[in-house]
Amino acid sequence: MIKIAVLGYGTVGSGVVEVLGKNHEKITQRAGREIEVKYILDLRDFPGDPVQEKVVHDYRVIAEDPEISVVVETMGGINPAYEFVKEALERGKSVCTSNKELVAKHGAELLAIAKEKKVNFLFEASVGGGIPIIRPLNQSLTADEIQEITGILNGTTNYILTKMAKEGVSFATALKEAQEKGYAERNPEADVEGFDACRKIAILTSLAYGMQVDHEDIYTEGITRITDVDISYAKEMGAAIKLLGTGKKVGHKVYAMISPVLINSDNPLFSVNDVFNGIFVRGNLLGDVMFYGAGAGKYPTASAVVSDVVDAVKHLGTNIMTIWSSEKLELADYKDASRRFFVRVPVAQEDKARELFGRVQEIDAGILGDFGFITPVMTEREYEEKAKELEVRSMLRMDF
Amino acid sequence: MIKIAVLGYGTVGSGVVEVLGKNHEKITQRAGREIEVKYILDLRDFPGDPVQEKVVHDYRVIAEDPEISVVVETMGGINPAYEFVKEALERGKSVCTSNKELVAKHGAELLAIAKEKKVNFLFEASVGGGIPIIRPLNQSLTADEIQEITGILNGTTNYILTKMAKEGVSFATALKEAQEKGYAERNPEADVEGFDACRKIAILTSLAYGMQVDHEDIYTEGITRITDVDISYAKEMGAAIKLLGTGKKVGHKVYAMISPVLINSDNPLFSVNDVFNGIFVRGNLLGDVMFYGAGAGKYPTASAVVSDVVDAVKHLGTNIMTIWSSEKLELADYKDASRRFFVRVPVAQEDKARELFGRVQEIDAGILGDFGFITPVMTEREYEEKAKELEVRSMLRMDF
Repeated sequence: MIKIAVLGYGTVGSGVVEVLGKNHEKITQRAGREIEVKYILDLRDFPGDPVQEKVVHDYRVIAEDPEISVVVETMGGINPAYEFVKEALERGKSVCTSNKELVAKHGAELLAIAKEKKVNFLFEASVGGGIPIIRPLNQSLTADEIQEITGILNGTTNYILTKMAKEGVSFATALKEAQEKGYAERNPEADVEGFDACRKIAILTSLAYGMQVDHEDIYTEGITRITDVDISYAKEMGAAIKLLGTGKKVGHKVYAMISPVLINSDNPLFSVNDVFNGIFVRGNLLGDVMFYGAGAGKYPTASAVVSDVVDAVKHLGTNIMTIWSSEKLELADYKDASRRFFVRVPVAQEDKARELFGRVQEIDAGILGDFGFITPVMTEREYEEKAKELEVRSMLRMDF
Repeated sequence: MIKIAVLGYGTVGSGVVEVLGKNHEKITQRAGREIEVKYILDLRDFPGDPVQEKVVHDYRVIAEDPEISVVVETMGGINPAYEFVKEALERGKSVCTSNKELVAKHGAELLAIAKEKKVNFLFEASVGGGIPIIRPLNQSLTADEIQEITGILNGTTNYILTKMAKEGVSFATALKEAQEKGYAERNPEADVEGFDACRKIAILTSLAYGMQVDHEDIYTEGITRITDVDISYAKEMGAAIKLLGTGKKVGHKVYAMISPVLINSDNPLFSVNDVFNGIFVRGNLLGDVMFYGAGAGKYPTASAVVSDVVDAVKHLGTNIMTIWSSEKLELADYKDASRRFFVRVPVAQEDKARELFGRVQEIDAGILGDFGFITPVMTEREYEEKAKELEVRSMLRMDF
């Protein structure tokens, strides 16, 4: 019998307790041992809930109990999660977490402590909810140099963009509906400004290249400036606008970015709609693979946390190798990355635009007064130089 | 330094040697040890090829060399692969294979020997080429009861069906082009009759439910009877015809089948086109996840084999738990599974069809002399009873 503690009895934490109960038999078989939740740490009490007898308010009870061999952290945020997780690892307990802020900021350090103590720090649920991506990256894609990892990593923004594309509604209307359905928070900033996706691509890029990518270094642009006019142009091109997080190696440089991007149906992420997430990985020999599923939600996320608990139980006393050193990976300036750009300017500037950008491809979406066009391939810096001369109504980076 | 042997220097075997050379640094880092190919077993010699000095013609050399700790089997077929693999495991060597026939037939037995000898029998490359699916099933989807696993598991047939749908060509023309491009063999039977996909769904279903599913028990139907008229009807329904392999739990029964199925864009497999494979898994709590990538090809397949070699090296002396007992899983009769069916009969039989099937949904694809319709949900047995009374021009199982 393995005893575990769950820190935080919110959506994911209570989901973990439910998953362990509901799939008890299968989980016991897979882990090779029975798993019992001994403590739940929460500031609240849950009178009437069968878990009430396990609730403790003081982390010391858990930290100092040698019977606890795995700690599940589902509190979120950096403090006090960081201190709690660090102490658990130092005391020889494995930790499984769904906390992307914690992993993005302190992943390398916590992995190093886990390695030293021959325990495990696992975080499958921190990216892509229920989609297996962290373990495949660490343990399946081991024969390849990763050339690119690009994902639709935030379900809320994907829902909003899908809604806008399918129903022609504005950003504000789509956001309101996402909030009514519980897909977006009342303060949606972390989602719509791309901050949530940024933490996730920081984690994936760190794992892909084995070094610390600081999320503060990643150029991050959300979807708030996307309009129905942009969507019309996208449709005219047979394309979709998706909020993509990318970590990419070009030569010896690594670029990372979060931004809305035009993709067409050649990209397997094209048909990842609604609240679903998709993560695309390109290996130098493997080619392209994609992982798709529910990127959030109580049970998918809890299922991913429990798969980590099973792995931790199977590996008691052994550290699972994860290559993520604390050495900082200096990202290349995104302005040096090359691509095509879709640009809209007032129709009066058509000649000027053609003069500046040379051989452009005009896109006519029937928008009065607009000249819409695709630039040749150029760096973002070159684009900005030229765009300064124009009254740009909108610009979208292109993937094709 | 870990020394390995490669059995069979064909497409995949030579790919394995190349991958180990090309990504040597990354692989050494991931495995924690350097990996060297000491022997290559092949009947042929390869004069001028730098591997020539490693070529041996007698398996005894490899079996009896205690320095060899991992054997890669890429010969294909049951004999002598089975004897070689069994002996390697019994002598305490781990085995990594891409051989689906071997795994489908003897997987449970070989896993049991590996477990007893504290070595590993790994077969990521046997299903889905480079797509990580075996390891995720074993190690990531451990918190869930698998309700369904359905895949596009054969790239050749998917290429043919995509070609027919996109270009309106006949099966024969599409097959000929697939052969010219090297996607289909001169004798394409194993692909187009569904036998290849059948081995793969037998493996996946065995792993999903932890028991032996014999491929001979799986109802298998290929794509040879699919015509351009069927494709026209599919398009009229906004659907695609895909050759799907399915293992599915309904109540306490497990159904498995290979057959062409009509799917619509709600199914994430809808946009898996050309030679790509996609594998969809539904967990009771996780919901739906999908894995997508190149299902065949020298380097993707070799990359998957090498990821197994890395895993074998990381786990020297420890068996990775894989739940697949040799106890036979008695599949339920596919005739008891319920769904809707798309049916075409001569227009003269419209009244009779309506009388037999009740509330049908007519599909008009503008085919003269045809009455095309979708039946209500019924078992395959019920469908067959009624269909006997009609001159059925074609029938397609539906997923929506």
